[in-house]
Parts: sequence; C-alpha cells; structure tokens
Amino acid sequence: MTGLRYSTDGPDMALLTAVFTPFTETGGLALDTVQKQADDLVAWGSAAAYIGGTAGEGASLSTEERMALAERWCEVADGRLDVIVHVGHSSLVEARRLAAHAESAGAKAISAVAPYFHRPETVAALVDACAAIADAAPGLPFTYYHIPSMTGVNLRASDVLLVARDKIPTFAGVKFAHNDMVDLQRCLHLAGGQHEVFVGVAKLVLAAWQSGARAAIGSVYNFAGPLFRRLLDHAVRGELAEARAGQQLAQQVIDTAARYGGELAGFKALGALSGVDCGGCRPPLVSPGPEQLALLRAEVTELGFLDTGH
Amino acid sequence: MTGLRYSTDGPDMALLTAVFTPFTETGGLALDTVQKQADDLVAWGSAAAYIGGTAGEGASLSTEERMALAERWCEVADGRLDVIVHVGHSSLVEARRLAAHAESAGAKAISAVAPYFHRPETVAALVDACAAIADAAPGLPFTYYHIPSMTGVNLRASDVLLVARDKIPTFAGVKFAHNDMVDLQRCLHLAGGQHEVFVGVAKLVLAAWQSGARAAIGSVYNFAGPLFRRLLDHAVRGELAEARAGQQLAQQVIDTAARYGGELAGFKALGALSGVDCGGCRPPLVSPGPEQLALLRAEVTELGFLDTGH
Amino acid sequence: MTGLRYSTDGPDMALLTAVFTPFTETGGLALDTVQKQADDLVAWGSAAAYIGGTAGEGASLSTEERMALAERWCEVADGRLDVIVHVGHSSLVEARRLAAHAESAGAKAISAVAPYFHRPETVAALVDACAAIADAAPGLPFTYYHIPSMTGVNLRASDVLLVARDKIPTFAGVKFAHNDMVDLQRCLHLAGGQHEVFVGVAKLVLAAWQSGARAAIGSVYNFAGPLFRRLLDHAVRGELAEARAGQQLAQQVIDTAARYGGELAGFKALGALSGVDCGGCRPPLVSPGPEQLALLRAEVTELGFLDTGH
Amino acid sequence: MTGLRYSTDGPDMALLTAVFTPFTETGGLALDTVQKQADDLVAWGSAAAYIGGTAGEGASLSTEERMALAERWCEVADGRLDVIVHVGHSSLVEARRLAAHAESAGAKAISAVAPYFHRPETVAALVDACAAIADAAPGLPFTYYHIPSMTGVNLRASDVLLVARDKIPTFAGVKFAHNDMVDLQRCLHLAGGQHEVFVGVAKLVLAAWQSGARAAIGSVYNFAGPLFRRLLDHAVRGELAEARAGQQLAQQVIDTAARYGGELAGFKALGALSGVDCGGCRPPLVSPGPEQLALLRAEVTELGFLDTGH
Repeated sequence: MTGLRYSTDGPDMALLTAVFTPFTETGGLALDTVQKQADDLVAWGSAAAYIGGTAGEGASLSTEERMALAERWCEVADGRLDVIVHVGHSSLVEARRLAAHAESAGAKAISAVAPYFHRPETVAALVDACAAIADAAPGLPFTYYHIPSMTGVNLRASDVLLVARDKIPTFAGVKFAHNDMVDLQRCLHLAGGQHEVFVGVAKLVLAAWQSGARAAIGSVYNFAGPLFRRLLDHAVRGELAEARAGQQLAQQVIDTAARYGGELAGFKALGALSGVDCGGCRPPLVSPGPEQLALLRAEVTELGFLDTGH
Repeated sequence: MTGLRYSTDGPDMALLTAVFTPFTETGGLALDTVQKQADDLVAWGSAAAYIGGTAGEGASLSTEERMALAERWCEVADGRLDVIVHVGHSSLVEARRLAAHAESAGAKAISAVAPYFHRPETVAALVDACAAIADAAPGLPFTYYHIPSMTGVNLRASDVLLVARDKIPTFAGVKFAHNDMVDLQRCLHLAGGQHEVFVGVAKLVLAAWQSGARAAIGSVYNFAGPLFRRLLDHAVRGELAEARAGQQLAQQVIDTAARYGGELAGFKALGALSGVDCGGCRPPLVSPGPEQLALLRAEVTELGFLDTGH
Repeated sequence: MTGLRYSTDGPDMALLTAVFTPFTETGGLALDTVQKQADDLVAWGSAAAYIGGTAGEGASLSTEERMALAERWCEVADGRLDVIVHVGHSSLVEARRLAAHAESAGAKAISAVAPYFHRPETVAALVDACAAIADAAPGLPFTYYHIPSMTGVNLRASDVLLVARDKIPTFAGVKFAHNDMVDLQRCLHLAGGQHEVFVGVAKLVLAAWQSGARAAIGSVYNFAGPLFRRLLDHAVRGELAEARAGQQLAQQVIDTAARYGGELAGFKALGALSGVDCGGCRPPLVSPGPEQLALLRAEVTELGFLDTGH
Repeated sequence: MTGLRYSTDGPDMALLTAVFTPFTETGGLALDTVQKQADDLVAWGSAAAYIGGTAGEGASLSTEERMALAERWCEVADGRLDVIVHVGHSSLVEARRLAAHAESAGAKAISAVAPYFHRPETVAALVDACAAIADAAPGLPFTYYHIPSMTGVNLRASDVLLVARDKIPTFAGVKFAHNDMVDLQRCLHLAGGQHEVFVGVAKLVLAAWQSGARAAIGSVYNFAGPLFRRLLDHAVRGELAEARAGQQLAQQVIDTAARYGGELAGFKALGALSGVDCGGCRPPLVSPGPEQLALLRAEVTELGFLDTGH
C-alpha cells in the first residue's frame, strides 16, 4: 500500500480532475485563476487535482512554469483537495527536478508519462525510467501515466504494472488513457486491492466501473464533473438505465467539443463556457475562435448540457 | 538567401556531423571531450557540427545542459567549424530560450524538430511553431528538422518548406530524416538554389546526391565521415562503381551497428570504437555492454571498416 | 426488424460460434468433421454457426470450397442451429456469388467484411459495397463484420451502422471485432432494439454484457463455449465475482493459446485439444507442431481449463 | 538466370506497363478494348504488359474474369509483347489455379503479392506461400510483388529476395512498390546480375535508374510511357537537367491525377483522357464524374502534359 488510495471496497467511484492550465490572453500563466479552479473542484467533490498532464499542457510549459503552477495549486488546495503533480518530461533530468520540487512544494503524489522523444523500447527500460523519477521524490506515491497516443510508447500498461510494483518502492498504480478495454481489465485484475487503476478515458467510465474500477482521472471533469457524479450515483443505486443515459449524454458532449479543436482545445473551450475560464491552448494547439465558440455553446445547449447545470 | 549555404553549384557534397553528446560514466556531461570531437571533425573536413539533435540526445538533456553544451561547442569550434544548435523542445517557451541562447553564444544557425508531445495537426500550425522559435534568434538562419519517426509529425516536409519560406524571414531549409525519397525529391525541386535540403538518412546519401542534393547532416559521420568523403569523391569523378561499393560498405556498417542498440546507441558505441569515445547513451536508451561491444568491434573489423582507417 | 434476432429484452446473452474450417492432413476440406462440430454446438447451446469468417479461414479457401462448406453446414444443422455464412471477398463479384449461393443453400443469414485489397475510403463507399453484396441474397439478413486488424479498413463501425440501416433493406447489424469499447458502446446505443451488435472480442464479453450487449460471435466458443455460458449465467444471477473469475480464466486461456501461433492457429490448436479436431491452419498461417501442442496442453491444464470440463 | 530478363548491362531501362482492366459501363469486362491497349504499348515500346495487378484491379475480379483477361492478352500480344500475369490472391488455392492457367494460356511469366487477409508473419512463411504459387506454373518465372500499402505485409523485400532465390526454382525477382529507397537499394545490390528488381514507384524511376535499376513496372505508363521513355533517353545521354525536368513533369501529372480519386481511379481517368479509354474503376473504388474529369483534363493540359503528345 502506498498512501495513494481513492478506491474503496464499496461501489463509489472517485473522480480526480486533470485540470487545465490557465493562460492569459498573451499566453502567460494566469495563476490567479487557480483559486477559482480549486474552489470549483471542492464544490462538486472532485477528489484531487492532477496538474501539468496532457490536459494541463505540461509539455508546453517551461520547467519554471511547471514549478510555479505546482506551488500555486498546493497553496490554494490547502488541504481541501489532493494535488497530484505530473512530472513527466522527455528528459529524465528535468523530470527528476520536477519530482523533487513537487515533494518540497507539498504535493500529495507524482505521476509521469514515458519519455516521449527517445522512447523506451522494453518494459524494463520504461520501468527503469519511472524508477529514476520516483526516486527523486522518495516520499511521494508514483503513478505511471499510460497514454500511447501522445507518447508513442505502446507497451502494455498491465505489463508495466507487473514489473513496476516490484521495482519501484513508491509505485501506486496506473493512469490508463487508452481505449483498449482488454488491457484495462488486465490492469484491474493485477492491481487487486494493492494498486490504483485510474480510468483515463471518460467515455469508458461506466463500463470500467462495471468492470470494477473505482477511480478515474480526466479533463472532462473540468466541465462535466457533476454530470459524471450523478450518473455514477445512479449506477451505485442500481439505476442502470439512468446511468447509461448520463454516460450517453457525456459521450455526445465530448464528441461535440472534440469537433471544436480536438479533445484538448475543444474541451478547454467547453470548460470556459461551462465553468472556470482558463483561456485558450498554447501553440502548437489551435483554439476555436469566437464564432466557433458560439456554435459550440449552441450545440451543447441543444444537447441539454448547459441548461441542466451539467 | 539566408546566410546558411553549404551546397554549391558544383558537384561537391558538404557533410555536417550530428555530433554525439559526451557523457561521463555517471551520466553527467563530459564537456572536456568536446575539444577532441571538434578537432576530429576539422581533421577530416566536416563542414559543421549539429549539436543537441537526435544523435546528441538533446531531448534527454536539461535546458541548462543544452546551453552549457552549446557554449562549449562555440568555444572549441573557434571559427574552424560552424556550430548549428538544435533547439527543438516539446515546449516552445524552452525552445525560444534555447534559440536566444544559441544566438548569444555565437552559433552559426539554429534548427528544430516539430513539437512532439502536443503535435501540430496542420502545416500552418507547424510553421507557426517554427516561426515562434526562429523569431527568438532573429539573426540566425533556421532549419526545420523533419524526423517523423521521433516526433510523430507526419506532415510532408515539402509542404512545410513551401509555407515556411514565405512565413519565416530566417528560413534556411530542411533537414530531411526519412526514407521517403519522393518527398525528398520534391523538397530538392522546391528548394531550387534558394534553400538547403540536408539529407538526413546516411543510406540515401549517394542516391540523394544523384538527385541533386549537395549537403547532408548525420550522426554516421561521427565515425564514418572519411568513408563517405571518399565515396562522394568517387561519385564526383564519375567513378560510380567505386562510389556504390563505398555506399554499400557504409550500409553494412550501419546495419551492423544498429543491431547493437539501434541507430542511436549502436552508432554511439561504434563511434567510441572508431573515433572519439563519448560514453554510452542516457536512459531510456540502453547501451551495449562490454561483451556486445567486443562483438560489434569484431563484426565491423570483419567488414573491413576499422582496418581501412574508415 | 430483419429476421435476425438473438438478443432479447432479458439478461441472457446468445453465443454464436465462428467455427473453424476442418482440413485434412494434406490441406483439403474435411467435410466429414462438420457433423461433429454441429453436434458439439447444439450440445452446449450455441445459437448459431458463423462459417467461413476469419476463424474459418474463408479468405484462404477457393470459392468452390466455400460453397461446399456452406452446403455441408446447412445440411448438418438441419434446423437445430442457425447457419450464418460469411461471404466477404476482395472481389464483390465473388462475394455476390457466395451470397446468392448461401441463400439457395438454405443459410439463415449472410455477413461480410469490407473489401480488403482495394479498400473503401469512405463510409459511403463501404456501405455501397455492402449493399451490393446484400442485394445478391435479398431474402437473407446482412451483418457487417467490422475487423480492422484484418481488412485495414478503419472506418468507425458505428458510422457504418448509421448509414447502412437506411441504405440496405436487409441490414441486420454489426459484428464488432475490435478492442475499441467506445465505438462498441456507440453501436449499442445506435442499434437500440432494432439491430444486432455482436460482440466479436471474447475478452470483452462480460464488459460488453454489462454495457447492454446481448449477443456475441467468436471463435473462442469452439473450445470455451461452456465456460462462457457459465460465466454469463453467473452474471445474470448477479454473481459478479464468479462471473469475473470466469472471464479472467478465459483471458488466461486465450493469452496462452495465442502464444502458440496467434489467435487463429493457437485457438485452432486448442480447439483440437479440447473439442473437435479440425486439423491445422492453411498457409500462410503456421500451426504449432506436436511438441508445441504438448506444451500448450500442459499450460491450459495447469490453468485448470481442460480439467474442469471447460 | 530464370528466363525473365529485361535489364541489360547497358544504361537502357525497360518499361513494363501494369495495364488497367477495361470495364463496360455496367461494370463487366470490356475485352474488346484489350487489342487497343496492346497496340498502344507496342507502339511506344513498352516491354511487357503486367495484367491483373493493383492497377488492373485483379483483386476486384472473379477468378473466371481473371482467366478470361489473361487469355485475351496472350492472344492479342501475339509475340509482340510479353504478358506477365499477376496471380496473387488471398487464397493460395485460387492463386495456384490462376498460375496454372497463366502457363497454359501462354503467358511469359507470373507474379504475386503476399496473401493479404491472413498474412504471413515471417519471411519464411511468405516465401513458402510464394513457392506454392510458383510451383503451380513450373515453367514460368515468378516475381514477388512487394506492395505493403495494399497487403499490409511489411516484411522487407530484400529479405524476401535473399530467401526466395534459394527456395523457389523459378524465382525471377521483385517488383518493388514502396517509397523506401533504402530497401530498394539493398534489393538492387543483392540481385546483382541474377535477378530483376522492377521499380514500382514511378516517382522514383530516375533516382532508381541512377542507383542502377534497369527495369520498371507501373500503371503510369498506361498514359505517360512516352514521357518516361524520353526522360530516360535524356538520362542515358547524360542530359541530367532534361531528365530531371521530365521526372518533375511526371511528378506533377501524378500528383494532379491522384487528386481525382487516388493513384488508381485518378490514373485510370487520366488514361482515358490521354490514351485508351478503359472506363471507370470497380467498387469499392470511386471514379471521378464528368465534371471532375473536365477539371482533370484542364489541369494536366495546363501542365503541358496533354499538348506535348506526352
């Protein structure tokens, strides 16, 4: 057991939010916005903020910016909310710096993707890379973040889990961001009650809950946390039809947003419409313009998403 | 014209070396080795050192290390050799810092891969990213480094060239590291006498020379510069059979080295055997051990590579 | 409604078997074996035999062989078992011949993959191809067989369903053989009570059942039908722990068999060990030899698969 | 030596045409057109007709149609032109039937792609499949047709050549349809004077000629044979600038045609404009309509292609 535990033996599912990074109009960090983001998460009951990951555009920030962001989040979370800092980087030197900093800043845990320029070719090489990062923050639980579409590292997450749990003293589990339900199920089976498997694909949340998953991390909770909260409550009470209707609405909202700049820029735009405005994305991502935003707003209103208090 | 010009109207081909980054046994930068590397390049006539790229494991270094390395190279080059600094990064903020630093350190030019975590999805977005980097070193020529196998960005280099030359005042050309000879030929055609197209695949050097290319950048010149020099001299004199025999030997040496850790760790190992020893690779790359090194030495000796003074 | 209906409003899941094609030692059709196969399916309650598909190596048979096989199955099924004939082919001319023949031979339904040499590039072109096939057997329900790993056609199955149901009078549904649970869920949602969605990945059967799927087609039921029958019975009775244990055992058996020649040759070998012996696979597939078969037998016995009457 | 030899020790390059299959308006075979096609090839000096391959939509024909087509070509060729019959099929049974038929019909040689539904996973399995086909036409030279984009078989052609030449008594060489110039060069090197390497990518013809290739097969020669003939004549006379200009014009024509339905439907449309009209493509390919044809004609006329007698 590693000190990072959101799943329980009960049916409830913990929702952790992979928060957007707020930018000013000129593209700098808008650290003032973090307070509002944290308050919003606390309000609807998000279990933690996962910062500087894919949705947080961590790879588009400088190391200094990533540190400033981590510090700000630890400050405003103030015990009301766990802060998990994503420290993955193409350079293990920078990743270790970020890991050590996260520990000193008061984060609850760290997490990292595989190195994504020079990529590990074997599970052993990948676990060694993770171990080097985890070792720089020896007091914090470490979660491997599996997201092959971004890293190009296609090694099975369940194979990584199998090796990492023996090699990394602080190994806490896997954040699984991939549509491959077979590998996800194998992770859940191998994890047993010992490690976390965070579902990282919002469209699979209900299916994964039915397969036994009890924790999820995603950017969709930036704007649809309450919707997922409700659909999971239905599921827990055995109201499966209502749960599926909620998941279905979520799917439609996600597909709609994705047509406005992909799952990152489109999601961030929807977040601005339905919650805290974190501005646009940094290049090379391209954010929707005002006209497109108006269309997006109309489409999700039509779906009944914005009206229902999401 | 941009001030970066290695190709001439004549038949000669310029060879620029994508230098390895030297590491100590414990994995730190071995800056003392740079002097030897530079002397070696000057000795056989390499036109320039391209530093911190794929072969230089730039993505595995911290920003501080990349700056220290650039400074050291500018120092030891001392006018005898051009220094081109690769400044590509997943974060444009860091890439711009590296670009500005390269200019102040006295580099001849900069170059960058596409952002490789959040990736540009259109040629326009990619050129915008390149423009942002180039703009941070306004006095230096900028070369786009096309290497889809590492970046996952598969936009055609010739399409990038077509747009970039109008959008980036300091645009100098393309470093083309891909087997797609059709796209390479289109780049050569579009470049005309105005921009450089650096052949980035050593196995295609002779074929690309025959197609009109007059400049190449590669890591293979760390250990096989003289071999390529000679085979191109044959080609220039119209001795095609001898040129092809040289290219063929190069192919065999490359294939052999690649079996000992891939084109990066294997090449670096061969470099240690046949030239300046730059140590192993940083994780997540895995370098061959002493036993494997002995086998590699035996294999390339058998090929006649090490005996002939390469 | 199309006359092909296995799903009910109740919780039961129908299991249809994608049967192996039996070969003699010299590689010819072993039509005598079909009787035994049909008896076995009837014995444990398989709802139908799906013949000449991927597991049936239809693409490795001649058209004449495919017809002979279809006739034999219709004969031996004799009303005890539905026969669904896969008629997909790289040539629509041959596919139409096979479709018309299936109807005249007395099959219950037809099904086809997308053309897989010259591939449709749009959903419209794919649906047109399906319509041409369906039209040759106007009295039989048509099911689109989605299996991108074999056909190279990556168009979303749910998009195909959406168009095909309006364009093909006999459209019955989709056989979904892909790990992408998100697309599968969208198919289930769109199908409503109107069309079938056959789960085609055995490892996802329980998860898909939980998502509302009520019918599956797979080759794994050639040897593990009773095991899946039991695990689904547990699920229906709300005994989720037992259901998951069964799915987990199935996973291990599948992974084990796949190590002996992939999911086709390995499965067929396991089928020979635990049920009706259909011989090896045709080239270019490579079947495990006697030594490997012994190892496979030992491994699955160790898992408790062969002992428990599976 | 195998009796299939187009390359000479001299500088000339043989051009073999991968002919289109002519269809009537209702999609049937238009065998009457074959005479005109053959006359055209003889007129400009094509060395052979390669029939029923990718451009010939062999995979979209029935086996009976493929046989009728082969017979017709052997008839009209009448010694003026070699006929090479592509007999590749997803089923080796059908491929062997086609091979035996080609021999009896009087073809000069056979050729086949790898099986493309159930695919060989190793070079050994692929060569075994080729051997089975070659064995059915023991008197005809056999050429392996490497085209990974269609077959999904990515095994290196040079590795296939290395094994096939020892295992297949009638092995004649490789038709190489892939942009990977490195593998092509290795094929040329390994082939020596013993086997043919047919360049299968028209855009690489000049580069491949410079690398030593002396034979090419392509569909582009259906409409641009004389253009390639002329550019190669320039190359042979050492007029490299003129040769490159010709290759460049070819590139533009190819890119233009490809925008009207891809390299197959677009090429066939251009063939109808500039030579023998073979009608449209069979589904699932989609041919350009009359309006698009007019645009295509305007574009290639603008390029100077149609006016110059190509």
